[in-house]
Amino acid sequence: MSEHVSPPAGLSRRGLLGLLGAGAGGIVVGAAGGAVVGTTVATAADSGSAAGTVHPFFGAHQAGITTPVQDHLHFAAFDMADDATREDLISLLQDWTYAAARMTQGLDVSASGAVGGRPEAPPDDTGEALGLPASALTITFGLGPDLFERDGVDRFGIAARRPADLIVLPKFLGDDLVPAASGGQLCIQACADDPQVAVHAIRNLSRIGFGRAKIRWSQLGFGRTSKTSAAQATPRNLFGFKDGTANILADDTAGLDEHVWVPASGAAGWMAGGSYLVARRISQLIETWDRVRLVEQERIVGRDKAQGAPLSGGDEFTAPDFSKTDATGATSIDARSHVHLAHPDVNGGTRILRRGYNFVDGNSVLGSLDAGLFFLSYQRSPEQFVRIQKKLSTDAMNEYVRHVGSAVFAVPPGATEGSYVGAGLFA
Amino acid sequence: MSEHVSPPAGLSRRGLLGLLGAGAGGIVVGAAGGAVVGTTVATAADSGSAAGTVHPFFGAHQAGITTPVQDHLHFAAFDMADDATREDLISLLQDWTYAAARMTQGLDVSASGAVGGRPEAPPDDTGEALGLPASALTITFGLGPDLFERDGVDRFGIAARRPADLIVLPKFLGDDLVPAASGGQLCIQACADDPQVAVHAIRNLSRIGFGRAKIRWSQLGFGRTSKTSAAQATPRNLFGFKDGTANILADDTAGLDEHVWVPASGAAGWMAGGSYLVARRISQLIETWDRVRLVEQERIVGRDKAQGAPLSGGDEFTAPDFSKTDATGATSIDARSHVHLAHPDVNGGTRILRRGYNFVDGNSVLGSLDAGLFFLSYQRSPEQFVRIQKKLSTDAMNEYVRHVGSAVFAVPPGATEGSYVGAGLFA
Repeated sequence: MSEHVSPPAGLSRRGLLGLLGAGAGGIVVGAAGGAVVGTTVATAADSGSAAGTVHPFFGAHQAGITTPVQDHLHFAAFDMADDATREDLISLLQDWTYAAARMTQGLDVSASGAVGGRPEAPPDDTGEALGLPASALTITFGLGPDLFERDGVDRFGIAARRPADLIVLPKFLGDDLVPAASGGQLCIQACADDPQVAVHAIRNLSRIGFGRAKIRWSQLGFGRTSKTSAAQATPRNLFGFKDGTANILADDTAGLDEHVWVPASGAAGWMAGGSYLVARRISQLIETWDRVRLVEQERIVGRDKAQGAPLSGGDEFTAPDFSKTDATGATSIDARSHVHLAHPDVNGGTRILRRGYNFVDGNSVLGSLDAGLFFLSYQRSPEQFVRIQKKLSTDAMNEYVRHVGSAVFAVPPGATEGSYVGAGLFA
Repeated sequence: MSEHVSPPAGLSRRGLLGLLGAGAGGIVVGAAGGAVVGTTVATAADSGSAAGTVHPFFGAHQAGITTPVQDHLHFAAFDMADDATREDLISLLQDWTYAAARMTQGLDVSASGAVGGRPEAPPDDTGEALGLPASALTITFGLGPDLFERDGVDRFGIAARRPADLIVLPKFLGDDLVPAASGGQLCIQACADDPQVAVHAIRNLSRIGFGRAKIRWSQLGFGRTSKTSAAQATPRNLFGFKDGTANILADDTAGLDEHVWVPASGAAGWMAGGSYLVARRISQLIETWDRVRLVEQERIVGRDKAQGAPLSGGDEFTAPDFSKTDATGATSIDARSHVHLAHPDVNGGTRILRRGYNFVDGNSVLGSLDAGLFFLSYQRSPEQFVRIQKKLSTDAMNEYVRHVGSAVFAVPPGATEGSYVGAGLFA
């Protein structure tokens, strides 16, 4: 690995992971990089600081699902090139694994980096994250339904291995989906506490995919709207309300096994330890919402705005009491409130792990901000999302939101060192 | 101020600043807010941490120019409503000043806040920054050329007070401007270390302007590309190079007086202590750039990629030696390099204070990222920018960038407590 690693197009075809075979135990060390052995990493980054937080890439599950939600997101959905082969898909997943494992450890995308290699060649790494620490970067890969089969063609020879759970989402009441924000054969979720680090990851992975896959749509998110750790404060969405109060937390092993991780007993064994990701771009009509009376905002959400306590009383973490009534005999929490309709009690116990982000993407010609929630949820089957979303068809909040993007992906289990994400699909 | 402050539309017409007259010394204290007296502030924010950094709003100059560049930007250009009057413009600037002074101190947009006031009314504050510290927020206001006169109409009675320096920028070679990212009668630059705080500021100021002004275009930026303090590390742009190495720093009083602040001796006396802002949305063809050889990238920039040292030798902060030649007799720094053409030595000593941000706004249908630099520069006259930009017409970097947005604004001096930004224009 002391020799130059050629630029992405060539690099990809050669099968980077193959080159690594000479090294012991997976990711090997280049002259320009730090040493990566298992989950131990040595880089120039200040790993003592929060910015220096480094999450292991390899493991039973992919990182970026139960990892404490980082502050920033860059998400991209990809389509394979029309002429791409099964071999291209495998080499792409291998190259992405190699690069992701490096970048999440705070390293350049390859050992020759942004300024190494031959000066007469383009650098492997695009360079804008030079000098920045890992910033808690996680990179999570997913496989869309039509990777397995598109227009009746099984291009990659994997149609027979498509998990039955990997359905195409039905159209929901009020969906106003645009193709430019929907679907995709592959996805990459990059989360980091520094947006430049997340952008650098997507950019370099997109570059590595050149000729094999290209970005179909993408989304930046700037403010997490959930938490996956009890230590994280509950953030607020752009309606000004706390969001993600009742999320499934990383230490809730039983809850994760029941609701998030695909069990080993499933029909598609290669997905055991994986999950399913639903991504929904939800535009929020914030200017309209902002003109709604406070009591009405709270009625719609079912919680008070200041503390996030259910309107049945208590504090943020008090369980809502949907039977409690006020002096007029009406329930304190409206039956059409968001908290009621999304609650496990009215959805047969169904829960999902949310991991969404706020976004603002410019403005309309009318001067309103193009703002909303980029909803991300992980569940052991997309059916869980479908059940809750159908229940939300009568949600009083629907008047103020528009679902404009939708996608679903099978998220394979984590890779073991020396292998790559999705390897089980081709075994 | 213990009474409810009515929602923005009504609030604006009543002239918030007028309501404040009862309080001593400008910004007064509401029950829901912290006490703001001069530059001393008491809030729930952890002002000991970086996130709790609070910058004074009032002063000789507006904050957000020499303030250490924060990590995030939300910028918006506004046009006044067609039927807006001089009185509307004045009340808008007053209301914006009131709200900006509060928000920069980590307070809600008004004393009644996001959950105060009457529950039967919409909250004054939209709420998504509840519980977040000031995060070093600065809010900087500017006035565009056609605020003074548009289509020959002097709607606001200020045409005669237009500074001669406030020109409309000429068309530069290679400009490919779109109206949706150009111009504007007013602008607001909100910078903060937390993007949710910057977005909250623009959203609430836009809301306050409802009926009087609306957003014409806007831009989020996620990574600063300059520094204004020697303590800040030089950041990198999306070409992977350090940017802003030779910027004018906040402690360079002489440099600021010479290049940035409008002198008291100028013809438009109300601008003394102010500055002029140029905003340019510059798309970077990053996928194309990424395929350029390292030596060629460095030749185009004129600096090495790793350290940012000029190609004539030394380290990042060594002055470039444009006369130095290599073994072939060619100058070490190409005459068409960016560092050469932008240098004060070839521009009659002209300097500007840069304050730009990287951006990524989704992707094209071809799968390339819509990425670039949102260039912001402050100078005592837009002529400084014009001179440098004309010189850059032969910049070798032009092959990889497209200027798609352009705007210029007069940035009034800072407001004194009890007054408002731009007051001098109406005196």
